[in-house]
Amino acid sequence: MAIKVLIIGGVAAGPKTAARLRRLDPDAEITVIERQDLLSYAGCGMPYYIEDIITEYDELLGGATIRDAEYFRDQKGFTVFDQTEALKINRKAKTVTVKDLRTGETRDLPYDKLVLATGASPFVPRMEGTELNGVHRLYNPHHAEAIKTAVNLGCSKVAVVGGGLIGMETCGAFVARGCKTSVLEMMPTLVPNLLDEEMAQLLENYLVSKGVEIVKGSPAARILDDGHGNAVGVETADGRIVEADMVILAIGVRPNTELAVEAGLEIGSTRAIAVNEYLQTSDPDIYAGGDCVECTNILTGEKMFAPLGSTANKHGRVIADNIHGMEMKFPGVGGTAVFKVLDYNCGTTGLTEKKAKSLGYDTVTTITPRYDYSSYIPGAKYTIIKLIADRKSCKLLGCQVLGEGDGVKRIDVAATAIKFGSNVKGIADLDLGYAPAYSTAIDAIQHSANVIRNKIQGIAFGVSPIELKAKLDSDEDFILLDIRRKDEFEAGGFKDKRVMNMPLDEIKTRHNELPQDKEIITYCVIGVRAYISQRMLTGLGFEKAKYLDGCITSWPYTEYLR
Amino acid sequence: MAIKVLIIGGVAAGPKTAARLRRLDPDAEITVIERQDLLSYAGCGMPYYIEDIITEYDELLGGATIRDAEYFRDQKGFTVFDQTEALKINRKAKTVTVKDLRTGETRDLPYDKLVLATGASPFVPRMEGTELNGVHRLYNPHHAEAIKTAVNLGCSKVAVVGGGLIGMETCGAFVARGCKTSVLEMMPTLVPNLLDEEMAQLLENYLVSKGVEIVKGSPAARILDDGHGNAVGVETADGRIVEADMVILAIGVRPNTELAVEAGLEIGSTRAIAVNEYLQTSDPDIYAGGDCVECTNILTGEKMFAPLGSTANKHGRVIADNIHGMEMKFPGVGGTAVFKVLDYNCGTTGLTEKKAKSLGYDTVTTITPRYDYSSYIPGAKYTIIKLIADRKSCKLLGCQVLGEGDGVKRIDVAATAIKFGSNVKGIADLDLGYAPAYSTAIDAIQHSANVIRNKIQGIAFGVSPIELKAKLDSDEDFILLDIRRKDEFEAGGFKDKRVMNMPLDEIKTRHNELPQDKEIITYCVIGVRAYISQRMLTGLGFEKAKYLDGCITSWPYTEYLR
Repeated sequence: MAIKVLIIGGVAAGPKTAARLRRLDPDAEITVIERQDLLSYAGCGMPYYIEDIITEYDELLGGATIRDAEYFRDQKGFTVFDQTEALKINRKAKTVTVKDLRTGETRDLPYDKLVLATGASPFVPRMEGTELNGVHRLYNPHHAEAIKTAVNLGCSKVAVVGGGLIGMETCGAFVARGCKTSVLEMMPTLVPNLLDEEMAQLLENYLVSKGVEIVKGSPAARILDDGHGNAVGVETADGRIVEADMVILAIGVRPNTELAVEAGLEIGSTRAIAVNEYLQTSDPDIYAGGDCVECTNILTGEKMFAPLGSTANKHGRVIADNIHGMEMKFPGVGGTAVFKVLDYNCGTTGLTEKKAKSLGYDTVTTITPRYDYSSYIPGAKYTIIKLIADRKSCKLLGCQVLGEGDGVKRIDVAATAIKFGSNVKGIADLDLGYAPAYSTAIDAIQHSANVIRNKIQGIAFGVSPIELKAKLDSDEDFILLDIRRKDEFEAGGFKDKRVMNMPLDEIKTRHNELPQDKEIITYCVIGVRAYISQRMLTGLGFEKAKYLDGCITSWPYTEYLR
Repeated sequence: MAIKVLIIGGVAAGPKTAARLRRLDPDAEITVIERQDLLSYAGCGMPYYIEDIITEYDELLGGATIRDAEYFRDQKGFTVFDQTEALKINRKAKTVTVKDLRTGETRDLPYDKLVLATGASPFVPRMEGTELNGVHRLYNPHHAEAIKTAVNLGCSKVAVVGGGLIGMETCGAFVARGCKTSVLEMMPTLVPNLLDEEMAQLLENYLVSKGVEIVKGSPAARILDDGHGNAVGVETADGRIVEADMVILAIGVRPNTELAVEAGLEIGSTRAIAVNEYLQTSDPDIYAGGDCVECTNILTGEKMFAPLGSTANKHGRVIADNIHGMEMKFPGVGGTAVFKVLDYNCGTTGLTEKKAKSLGYDTVTTITPRYDYSSYIPGAKYTIIKLIADRKSCKLLGCQVLGEGDGVKRIDVAATAIKFGSNVKGIADLDLGYAPAYSTAIDAIQHSANVIRNKIQGIAFGVSPIELKAKLDSDEDFILLDIRRKDEFEAGGFKDKRVMNMPLDEIKTRHNELPQDKEIITYCVIGVRAYISQRMLTGLGFEKAKYLDGCITSWPYTEYLR
C-alpha cells in the first residue's frame, strides 16, 4: 500500500521533502499543508526586493512560474493545501487535525510518516508599541510588500531593531533606498554571533560611513507613538531615543515548536525541535527539518539553532531519503553565514574567536586585508580575512570575511576545509584556481593561512587590534613604529606619543635609535612591510619586536588615527 | 657563518624563495640572478594588458613600486643581478658561472645552496616562418608590449596558434580589441588537457558566437609570408589556410632545464626537473621550483608538468623553509587551472573524465547548468558544471566549469574537497555560504553532487551529450521525449524524427502513448523537469527511461538543434 506522508509547512524544507520523495516513490500519498496563502517563497530575497534589486513581487514567488498549489500538483506531483493550519498532532491515531482557514472547517488527515517543517517566526518582544502603524516584521512577501510600499510612499527614517544578519541585510536595503537608517543592537557589537568584536567594528565603521546610525549596548525598550497610533521612534532601555517613521523588528527568529511541544516531542536545549542524525524527532514516525529544528555543529558536536534556507533544503532531501528507507544522515552544519550590506560582503564559518576560547581552545588568530583579484585588475577590492586556528593541532577553527572584495568565495573554501578537519598548512597547500581576474598568485585565504603558520612557528609576532587598543589606552611604555615612507607617515597614521616613524629601508642603518628592551610594534598599510620589519628587528636582536595584525587597513578604532 | 644561497631566476619562484628566506634568516647571503632585464613581472597579467583591461605597462612590473633590483635590495633585503645569465653549474666547486649580458664579463658565484627557478619558455615549433615580422611569442612584458602596439597600430587579423590556456586567454584579448581572431589547435578539441570533449565544444560554440574562427585537428605547418618578410597567415598540415597579419605562437611552454641537464641533475618523465617532496633535485644542495620542475598530482601520485604562478609561489616558500632547515613538504598539485575568455569563466580541477578513464576508474559524470546566484538577482548567470566521480568509492575525481556565471568559486570548493578525498555526499553536505547574491539555496556544485549521487544510487539515469550524439547519428530506435510545454517545444529543440513532445504535466494521462520497451530519453531546458519526468516514467514501469544530462542548455552539438 502507498505510504501516506503528511508534511506541515510549505515554504522550504516541506516542499523539498515532498518533491524529493515524489521522485523517489511514485506511489506515496504526499500532502503538504501550509497556514499561509503563499508557498515556497524566496524569503531570503525579501531584503533585495525592498532594495529594489528585485523589482517584481512575483519573483519572490517563483517568477514566471508561480509556485502555488497547482504548480506543485502539475509539475512536482504532490498535493498542497494552503491556508490550512495544523491544530494538533494525534500521535496515537497518527492523524493531524487541520483547519481550513478560509472556511473554518476542521478535519483529521492521516499519516504514516509526518514531517514538521513549521519554520521559525520573527521574535516580537513584549514591549510597548509593537502594534503601532509603521511597525513591521519581515517574515513573508506580504511583509516585504508592505515595507516596500511604505518606502515608495516616502517613509524616510527607519529604525531597524536588531543588528543581526536580517537586520544588516535590511539596513543595507533602506540605505540604498535613501532612507535615514538606524540600527539598534542590544549587544555591544553588531552581528555578535557571527563576527568577533574587531570585525564587527569594521563593519560598523563602514555602515557609519554610509550614514547609518548605530545604537548599541542597550535593548530597545518601547516604540514611541504620535498619539494617533503611528510609530515615531524607538527608545532604548538606557533612555536613548531614535526617531523613525518606520520600525523593523529584526530581533531574530524563534522556531515554531508549538505543535511539537503539544504532541510531547522532545525539544532541544536550543528550544528548537530535537532530531537525530536521520532528522527523526523523539517519535520515529515524525521527522522534522528546516528552521524549526536544531542542528549539530560539525566542529564542536554542540547543538545550535542556525536557521538557513540552504540547510532547510538539505534537510528536506535527507528526510525524504529516510522516509524512503535510504538511511541517510545529516552530519550537521559548519556555522556558516554570509550576508551582503550595500557593497560589503560579509561572512563567517566555523567558530568565532570568542566561541573558540569559550570552548577552551588555545587560539591563534590573524587579520589580513588582501585584494580579492590581482591588484592590477580594475575592480579588485580588499577583503579583510580573520582566521582562527588551534595552536596545538594547527587546525583551522574559523574564518570571517568583510569588505568590498569577494570574501565569500574564501568562506566557501574555509567551510570546505573545516568540514574535512584541515590544518592551516592544508589551506596553504590547496591548489586553488588562479588567474588574475579571480584571485592573486597567493590567494587571500592562503596568505592568511601562511601568516597563522608563521605565528605558530614562532616567526611572526602579531599584536591584534584589540591588544593594541588596550596598550594605547594604558600608560605602557612601548614604541609604535610606523615603517612607511615619510610621505605616507605625514599623510596620516596613529596619533599617540609612542608613535615613531622609521621607513623600512632605513631600519638597517637606523636601528640603533631603537631601544633593545622595549616592545616595538611595527605597522604599515596592510601588514606586508610591517611583518618584514618585524623580522628585521627580530634578526637584529630586538626580542620584543612585533607587528600589528592587519595594520591600518584593518584597524577598527578610528578614534586612534589621525 | 652566513649561508650563501644563489637563486637562478628572478620572476616568481626565485624572488619568493629569496624574500621568504630573508625573513627567516637575517644573515643569509642571498643572491638572485635573472637573464632578462625585467624582474618579478606579472606574466599572468599579459593577456589583460593586451586586452587593455590593464592600461599601464608598469602595472605588469609592480605598478607604483617597480620591482627592480633596487626594490628588492631596499624593501626585501636581497641582491639581484638582472641581465645576468647562468652559464654552468659547477657542482663540485659549488659555484655557478654567470655572465653579465651587458658587459659580457663572466665570473663564478659560490653557493652553499643553489635554487633553480629557471621557468619555462614558450615552445617555438620548427616550422617555416617563425622568424617573420608579425610572429610573436608571449613570454615577458616586452612581448606583450609589442603585441599591444601592433593591435593599437591597426593589426586586425590574428591567428593564435595553440588552443590551450594561454591561447584562450590571448584569443579573448584580441576579440575584445576588435580583431578578427582565429585559433589553431592541432587536437580535435580546444584546451584538450583541461576540458573534456563536450565541455570544450561548449567553449568553442561560445567563441564562434563571438566571431572566432576555430581551426582544429591538424597542426600548424608553416607561417605564410608576403615575400617581404611579413607574416600573412598560417597553413595547417592538412592544407587549410588562415589569413592573419599577426601570428601568436601559444603552443605551450617547455621547462628551461638546460642548466640542470648539463649539471647532470635528474630530469623527470615529464621532461621537467625532478624534485622530491622537499623540492630538492637529485643533488641535495640544489633545489628547484616554479615552472622548471615537475609536480606530483595529489590524486594520482603521477608526475605532471603544470606550470602556474600560484604553484611557483608555493614552491618558493617551501624551498626557503627547507634551506632554513624547517623540513617542509610540498604535497603536490590538484590539477587546477582556471581562465577567462571574454565573459566566459572556465576552469578545471582534479581529473578530466578522459584522464580518469585512462587510469582505470569506473567514472560516473554529470553536466548541470545552474545559476551562480539566485535566479531573481539581476546579473545571475549560468555556470555549467561537469563533475566526475568514481562509482565505486563515490569519491569526487574532477570538476569542470564553463559559462558566464561564477563557476571558478565552485572550482575552489571542488579543489578543496578533492584535496581531502571527499566523496560526493561530502560535497552535498558542505555548509557553504548562502545568500541570494552569492549562490542558490542549493549551491550549483551541491546540486551537481546530488545528481551524481542519484546516478550512483540508481535513481537518475542520465545520457551524456556524447552518448546521445552517437545515438542520433545511428539508426537506433528510441524516443527523444521533449517534455517542455508545447510553446517551448514549438520554439525550438532537437531536430530528429525520433523527437516527440509530451509536456511534463501530461505524462500522467498520456503515458500510454509511449512504448514500454523502447528507450525513452527525456529533455527540457536545464534538466530539472527532464529528471522529474524520467522518475515518473521509471515509476510507471518504463524501464528504459533516461534523461539527457544538462539538456538543451549544455548541449554542445548545435547542428542537431533546430
